[in-house]
Amino acid sequence: MRIAVDVMGTDYGPREIILGSIDAVKEYGCSVVLVGDEHQINEILLNCGEYNNEKITIVHAGNVIEMNEHPAISVKTKQDASIVVATKLLHTKKCDALVSAGSTGAAVAAALFGLGRIKGVERPAIATPIPNVTGTTVVVDSGAKVDAKPNHLVQNAIMGSIYAELILNIEEPRVGLLNIGEEEIKGNEQALATYPLLKNTEQIHFIGNVEGRDINKGTVDVVVCDGFVGNIVLKVEEGLAQALMTLLRGTISEGGILAKLGALLIKRSLKRLKKKIDPAEYGGALLLGVKAPFIICHGSSKAKSIKNAIGVAIDFAKKDVVTKIGDTVAVKGKCNN
Amino acid sequence: MRIAVDVMGTDYGPREIILGSIDAVKEYGCSVVLVGDEHQINEILLNCGEYNNEKITIVHAGNVIEMNEHPAISVKTKQDASIVVATKLLHTKKCDALVSAGSTGAAVAAALFGLGRIKGVERPAIATPIPNVTGTTVVVDSGAKVDAKPNHLVQNAIMGSIYAELILNIEEPRVGLLNIGEEEIKGNEQALATYPLLKNTEQIHFIGNVEGRDINKGTVDVVVCDGFVGNIVLKVEEGLAQALMTLLRGTISEGGILAKLGALLIKRSLKRLKKKIDPAEYGGALLLGVKAPFIICHGSSKAKSIKNAIGVAIDFAKKDVVTKIGDTVAVKGKCNN
Repeated sequence: MRIAVDVMGTDYGPREIILGSIDAVKEYGCSVVLVGDEHQINEILLNCGEYNNEKITIVHAGNVIEMNEHPAISVKTKQDASIVVATKLLHTKKCDALVSAGSTGAAVAAALFGLGRIKGVERPAIATPIPNVTGTTVVVDSGAKVDAKPNHLVQNAIMGSIYAELILNIEEPRVGLLNIGEEEIKGNEQALATYPLLKNTEQIHFIGNVEGRDINKGTVDVVVCDGFVGNIVLKVEEGLAQALMTLLRGTISEGGILAKLGALLIKRSLKRLKKKIDPAEYGGALLLGVKAPFIICHGSSKAKSIKNAIGVAIDFAKKDVVTKIGDTVAVKGKCNN
Repeated sequence: MRIAVDVMGTDYGPREIILGSIDAVKEYGCSVVLVGDEHQINEILLNCGEYNNEKITIVHAGNVIEMNEHPAISVKTKQDASIVVATKLLHTKKCDALVSAGSTGAAVAAALFGLGRIKGVERPAIATPIPNVTGTTVVVDSGAKVDAKPNHLVQNAIMGSIYAELILNIEEPRVGLLNIGEEEIKGNEQALATYPLLKNTEQIHFIGNVEGRDINKGTVDVVVCDGFVGNIVLKVEEGLAQALMTLLRGTISEGGILAKLGALLIKRSLKRLKKKIDPAEYGGALLLGVKAPFIICHGSSKAKSIKNAIGVAIDFAKKDVVTKIGDTVAVKGKCNN
């Protein structure tokens, strides 16, 4: 198994991405192809003593697409950008899967132009796993397609369901439509039009509308939504978890010496909690609907996150999620209602 | 100051609403008019020994609109529903403000039909205060209008800004547009069309796009969004905070006797944290844009929440937020860009 890793365009620079790749090679026994500025990569590999590791190769890319660039235009004009070069390796089957922590928009555009959609899939979607009180919930779409049409949401449901089954090992995943009320009559135009379609989609186990408060409850496995809403939801989760830790530190420090002692005693419990809800543990999100395994990580991913993402990429390729999506979406007269 | 309180249609029944109203009368010296089933209200007042309190009066309403009913249809057909009767008291100036914890949709419909919009306001919006690490952020709209037009969002920004200034005492509140990236080119059609309008709205201090993770950070005071997105965001916040407490209890109990001792020592700190983030402390959301002070509380509000909501209702009426909104929205050639 050979994984292409785009090392450029992340918040902390290529070092963390390369460290995570090295760890993945050691843990999973896979090969990695590091795509990016050859000079920088060589220097970091030399520093790590991994310069001669034959499972680690470099493919030079002289350019990078930054977060603030227009994704589609940049992908078309910067053919030497790391994400474009890495996607080519995947398209030409020189690699089995791809991991990127650069601009999400650029990654989606590169995958669309460079790999293309699975036959029958109208729009790719990003499926992001997030922790709930009993396990994991997948939010799909968390940012690939804003202003999605109802049929796109139906396909999100099908693809998210396959992800939950194959990657998260959830049998008959419960699929819910993210909405502002449980009743079928609630919602915006998009949700109102999507509900009856999902009800008639035989490939999924649809449990109806779910609300924002259900996401972390463990009562739904696949939460279907528009990419605009999904992206905001994920970032609210991230921000609130951080804010609560900050506020807790504040109230503990107000609590004097005994509270501080208490904090010391539950330090390990807090650490376990942090690990449970740490996105790094989940190893990034899957771009579903394109013709090869494509993983998108948070821009602020550190080594552990990248290592885990490579683990997910291997799983994604091994379990052949791409073929399963193609077969399921192709079931006639069902996914198109 | 006389506040109409709709005691029906809540998760815990009229008792909690009545207890909160009694507390408000004691704390703020206001009068309350309890609207709902006379028999039930009398019984509860008798039990509390408040039957003869002259600051507490009852107006009977023989019907109630439940959460699962169609708001507009029910408000039109059930003229004896508590929310409709309470709104009439406000419209005829028999009360100065209204507090409801029943169906949000029914409350919005009753306010629209029974009070009408402030001249110049196209759609009312719900402004909900939520805690951030340094104070309070207002999310507007959190559920009054889904599929909002860009100009509705501009008015949300203006009304939210007035709320932040007058009720939360924030000078020159920072207004942000909730989006999936900071750059002006990011977003769905609605956000892309709204950004330039907000940039040209002189009545507000617009700081650009904000993301989900900014809501609890304390870097923005007024977060402007569509009612569909805002409602989901609020419920994600609610659900995640609860899930984190559940997960923390789990990791502490795994941590053995020392962790449990630690938990005991930080119990008061946790309580202070809980108080800081408890929606009950904020006393409900304001329905902005209708012709009288109208407060909407969570369906699961308990006595403390209702008492605080009545406090906010008094403030809302005293500071004459309604007139200020009318004057600001009426500034020609600005709010309509």
